[in-house]
Amino acid sequence: MNRTILLIFTIILLSAHHIFSADHPSLIITKEEATQIKASMGKLPLLNRSIEMIKKTVDQAMTKPMEVPQPGEAGGYEHERHKQNYREMQQAGILFTITGEEKYARFVRDMLLEYARLYPTLGKHPLAHNQAPGKLFHQMLNETVWLTYTSMAYDCIYDWLDQATRDKIEKNVFRIIIDWFITENHHEFNRIHNHGTWTVCSIGLIGYVLNDQNLVDMALYGTEKDGKGGFLKQLDLLFSPDGYYMEGPYYVRYAMRPFFFFAEAIERNQPELKIYDYRNQILKKAYYSAVQTTFPNGVFPPINDASRTMDIKDVGVVLANSLVYSRYGADPNLLAVAEIQNEVLVNGLGLKLAQDYTNTKNIPDMNWGSIEFTDGYDGNQGGLGILRNGTGDSQSMLLMKYGVHGEGHGHFDKLHFIFYDQGREVIPDYGFSRWINIEPKFGGRYLPENKSYAMQTIAHNTVTVDQTCQNNFDRKQADEMSGERHFFNATNPNVQVMSARADDYYPGVKMQRTMLLIKVDRLDYPVIVDLFRLTSDKMHTYDYPIHHRGQLITKNFEYQAYHKTQQPMGEDFGYQHIWNEASAQVSESPKITWLDGNRYYSLVSAAIPQTEIIFGRTGANDPNFNLISEPMFIIRHQAQNHLFATLIEPHGYFNEAREQSDNARGDIFDVKVVGHNNEGSVLDVLGKNDLHWRIIVNNGKASEREQHSVVFGGKKYSWTGNFKVDLEVK
Amino acid sequence: MNRTILLIFTIILLSAHHIFSADHPSLIITKEEATQIKASMGKLPLLNRSIEMIKKTVDQAMTKPMEVPQPGEAGGYEHERHKQNYREMQQAGILFTITGEEKYARFVRDMLLEYARLYPTLGKHPLAHNQAPGKLFHQMLNETVWLTYTSMAYDCIYDWLDQATRDKIEKNVFRIIIDWFITENHHEFNRIHNHGTWTVCSIGLIGYVLNDQNLVDMALYGTEKDGKGGFLKQLDLLFSPDGYYMEGPYYVRYAMRPFFFFAEAIERNQPELKIYDYRNQILKKAYYSAVQTTFPNGVFPPINDASRTMDIKDVGVVLANSLVYSRYGADPNLLAVAEIQNEVLVNGLGLKLAQDYTNTKNIPDMNWGSIEFTDGYDGNQGGLGILRNGTGDSQSMLLMKYGVHGEGHGHFDKLHFIFYDQGREVIPDYGFSRWINIEPKFGGRYLPENKSYAMQTIAHNTVTVDQTCQNNFDRKQADEMSGERHFFNATNPNVQVMSARADDYYPGVKMQRTMLLIKVDRLDYPVIVDLFRLTSDKMHTYDYPIHHRGQLITKNFEYQAYHKTQQPMGEDFGYQHIWNEASAQVSESPKITWLDGNRYYSLVSAAIPQTEIIFGRTGANDPNFNLISEPMFIIRHQAQNHLFATLIEPHGYFNEAREQSDNARGDIFDVKVVGHNNEGSVLDVLGKNDLHWRIIVNNGKASEREQHSVVFGGKKYSWTGNFKVDLEVK
Repeated sequence: MNRTILLIFTIILLSAHHIFSADHPSLIITKEEATQIKASMGKLPLLNRSIEMIKKTVDQAMTKPMEVPQPGEAGGYEHERHKQNYREMQQAGILFTITGEEKYARFVRDMLLEYARLYPTLGKHPLAHNQAPGKLFHQMLNETVWLTYTSMAYDCIYDWLDQATRDKIEKNVFRIIIDWFITENHHEFNRIHNHGTWTVCSIGLIGYVLNDQNLVDMALYGTEKDGKGGFLKQLDLLFSPDGYYMEGPYYVRYAMRPFFFFAEAIERNQPELKIYDYRNQILKKAYYSAVQTTFPNGVFPPINDASRTMDIKDVGVVLANSLVYSRYGADPNLLAVAEIQNEVLVNGLGLKLAQDYTNTKNIPDMNWGSIEFTDGYDGNQGGLGILRNGTGDSQSMLLMKYGVHGEGHGHFDKLHFIFYDQGREVIPDYGFSRWINIEPKFGGRYLPENKSYAMQTIAHNTVTVDQTCQNNFDRKQADEMSGERHFFNATNPNVQVMSARADDYYPGVKMQRTMLLIKVDRLDYPVIVDLFRLTSDKMHTYDYPIHHRGQLITKNFEYQAYHKTQQPMGEDFGYQHIWNEASAQVSESPKITWLDGNRYYSLVSAAIPQTEIIFGRTGANDPNFNLISEPMFIIRHQAQNHLFATLIEPHGYFNEAREQSDNARGDIFDVKVVGHNNEGSVLDVLGKNDLHWRIIVNNGKASEREQHSVVFGGKKYSWTGNFKVDLEVK
Repeated sequence: MNRTILLIFTIILLSAHHIFSADHPSLIITKEEATQIKASMGKLPLLNRSIEMIKKTVDQAMTKPMEVPQPGEAGGYEHERHKQNYREMQQAGILFTITGEEKYARFVRDMLLEYARLYPTLGKHPLAHNQAPGKLFHQMLNETVWLTYTSMAYDCIYDWLDQATRDKIEKNVFRIIIDWFITENHHEFNRIHNHGTWTVCSIGLIGYVLNDQNLVDMALYGTEKDGKGGFLKQLDLLFSPDGYYMEGPYYVRYAMRPFFFFAEAIERNQPELKIYDYRNQILKKAYYSAVQTTFPNGVFPPINDASRTMDIKDVGVVLANSLVYSRYGADPNLLAVAEIQNEVLVNGLGLKLAQDYTNTKNIPDMNWGSIEFTDGYDGNQGGLGILRNGTGDSQSMLLMKYGVHGEGHGHFDKLHFIFYDQGREVIPDYGFSRWINIEPKFGGRYLPENKSYAMQTIAHNTVTVDQTCQNNFDRKQADEMSGERHFFNATNPNVQVMSARADDYYPGVKMQRTMLLIKVDRLDYPVIVDLFRLTSDKMHTYDYPIHHRGQLITKNFEYQAYHKTQQPMGEDFGYQHIWNEASAQVSESPKITWLDGNRYYSLVSAAIPQTEIIFGRTGANDPNFNLISEPMFIIRHQAQNHLFATLIEPHGYFNEAREQSDNARGDIFDVKVVGHNNEGSVLDVLGKNDLHWRIIVNNGKASEREQHSVVFGGKKYSWTGNFKVDLEVK
């Protein structure tokens, strides 16, 4: 063969790459990467651990009889078995690619042949609940995950299989499932939603493996290939321009896998699409906006339907961390993420992360600073604000939610806040009402209490009006609205402010919440100042709730305890689930102190005549013990226009084992509303040793420069911009 | 000077040692030890850390103005200041001895002179509550601790002071306080109780320092020096022959300091007393019996009035560990204790422990195995049984209490059990009702709910009769009785059994509880089998409670939930503090599964016709929110003679963050009582995959060898000894 012919041959081969895709595997790992990984084994702790975990799972699986059972119920044994099977197949595929040991390829092949026997016999799963059904699983969602993983497994052993076996598997499994997705369930396929992402990912992956560009194109552009559905449209609509995912961090964590598995496969098979640059690098932004919402311990804030414990160790975040680190330039912050994860993706990109991790001497604490995200695909639908002070374990974090509803998993919680301190949520979000995957608890699915309590406004730390729910619990109505950003300023780390609005979530009621995180030397920890202002042309009952997890220590008012008989606070909108433990009528500034962990928390609220304070606890109307028993208190006031002005001070120290208690009462003793109108609110904060702060907030149009003044009680208060904080009032 | 004269001189000096005790310091550390410590500094991590902690405290104290305030209220600022002062003086004394830096001596001297100004002006503290009063503190107990520490501080700077200063301090502080203790409060002095121990310790120590043997003798033998009071009598009466302390582990932890500070001072100043050998080395046994009751994480079981978190890091246990390790021969188990403590006593004995720790390559996990302690000074008043299975974090521990009441801090909880699993109590003791040292919570003192709930029988995991309390809550009556050991057998680590009796704690009712901890390969974890047998000649209502901290997952019976209105379970004996959440009538074997942490727990109880099951939660009749809200369930049955036969199975795995749930239902599904009489009880346990166990327990006189047989349902069951467990019934 002379050189010219060789050259021509090479050109044909190269250009043919996308025509008959002779190279397998190509989705997430190549043979070259496998060789490099093999050469690095034993040298890189993160990579070693990742491979060892895979090896342990697969080797253990191979000691047991293979099981491909008939479909079963959600969360049941068969359901879990099929999930375990796709994980084991994918991991065995990776091990075969790296080690070349044929036992792993045989494991994948044999299991695929089992599925080739079973799959053609299956119809629609009989236990689908208002969801697109699968065949192996009750919902098609699980089936798309199955196909995503199985495609990667098949990719790894494709070259090793003989053609007859490939034909058998493709005919009896893949072609049936593809048809099920694109023909029978094209609605799910084209949906702009994480279920849609999983669907197009799975079809895109198997498309590349089978060298069926038609499938890939459908995955990219929708079944009609008109761009109205498909992966790119999802990238356009599911994220704000900042990358914030409209369903919230718990869901983007779940969506990371289909987004990044498919993106990586596209990058490897159709690099000309420049998928990682698409929409100004939206995939990078999506990843960062997910990890940047996390608490300092790596747990995602449980916004919307979410567990309280999901964290960045999740497999999707591990995957994305390796890809984003290598595809977008090596950000040391992502080494901090990898340190918490203690794991990398097993491919060439994970290898790079593991190498850099090993070569970096001082991995920093994960710290994202204060940050605001816009919400909505256009970035004009409110947002999410996060104020942080301190580092590592001693970081305080205050999060306020003022974006979109978030569709079916959204909670009716506009202007809700979460406060994280001492390494955990101390003013928490309830999260979902679901014992996820616990089969005896309603099959591990969402419980009725998710709708009757967890989604309701009163389950959150935001004001309810007339003891009802925002949008009257109408999701469609809620999806059409959003909160509104007002201003966000974290320039001064010791005086950080965010402010947002939510109008007509209750008809005719306008709400503005401004939250400050203030740190001064004379107080033990950063404190929260909260100005929640409501205006309306009618009288309403406004309930300002604070959920917590501690023990009441003291208060400065008398109350009536309902300690001999206890009844729910109401009939509907979540109030039916709250036992009314005590109530008080107060006119002076109420102060409540509770203990949580090793720290005390005091809330001081401005005095308002005829205010009621209610102590509650979840658990009423819960005959199945589905709810978690947790305390709260509620400040209730009837008015047209009202400003709830409160300060929350973490203070002191308690250590039961060492029998030590310091500063159990706190330093702040009063909050006074000087006045508030549509121009501004003026607040005084008073504490021990002549502490006197004055806080002014702009209630009008946001502007950094505009000059304002208001007159209250004959006195003029002036300021420039959106707020003014004087920590040394003379 | 010729040699003879020198010799005579030396003899005089040596014999004079106990006459005028020229050597200071002599209580806990000598100059020679200080020299050795100085030479070891920087080499031994445990010692370094211990010295660093002391140095940090004292150096920080020395930057602030010295404060010796007027007396204040319990738990208040002044109270805490005086406590901090004695700690700082003692630690400054140690630092002066080791480093020779005079700033530390001056610190002690100046503070003592402040006390010399204040103390003569003080009378009896006005806020004493039914307690012997102090002058600086509301109770004399604190004052004895003050004197104990201050004596050690004075000992360290004694030689450095001039005589005039000594005279001033002794006259204006020590002689007044001594007189206060031995004259005004000789009742407290001679009391056989931890308050008495602190008193004699403080007087003994100051006696040695002042070279006042009369004081030392009173400390040893009582104010009358007749041996009816004093340290030796306390060693005789406060411990069982096994060393078990009648008030329980939380209190022996507190009493360690006076026992060991004084013992060590005696050993150094009057070695001829051989105090460490006294009563067959009772001090050694006392120490071991304390640490051997701890959970695997080093936390003391909260028996009687005790916090739930006190652990072996407590200063008294650190002290005792160093002394016992060195005085009684180097036990490697105590290195494991030191590892948890991460600290040693700063003297020559702590130095030895720190050296051995550094030189030992593999420090074992702390593991005391299964063990039984006798109770009562004569060892004939019941006891405490502990069964353990597994090691380290995965250890299961089952503790049953059947000893004496324990005087004023005793709980009415005979035959109560605690189950520890997953690194914490999963079937817990409530401990005390007290927010210790939290001033706004009743001054940090015991709350009224300590008597109305925490001490009551229903607050414990033992049967109540007719919804009342053992001994009708009469402490004096309770102190006159005790539980009775029946048998204890931990020979086979996989089938361990303990059995005990408590008769007439309810008049006319005899109770026997037999608990087994059984581990078999086919079950995930060790399980508890519990046979609680009650006999009486009258009908009674028997309530069998299980307290837990988890979430109800499932049950195999229908119940009536009181979810729209909730009322207390009763009017008295603790029942008034329990909300009645639901109740059921069951006839089949009830099974209840709850989730706690990462594990499920199922209780299966033998079927009994007309049995009621009640779900409760603490918090009723608690207008001050003093109680901790925790769930329980109660199996209620009316009978004359009854055997509660239950099995508690920990099983499966739940990880919310990883969305994983395995084996949420457990394997055991039935427990059947074949029969029970005064000879024996026969029980069958049934589970999945034909699991069938038969358990036979001897209800007659305990004997390892005697042959027994009973006939139930026409069938004969025979066994030898106290029990028979067949794990493979054909």
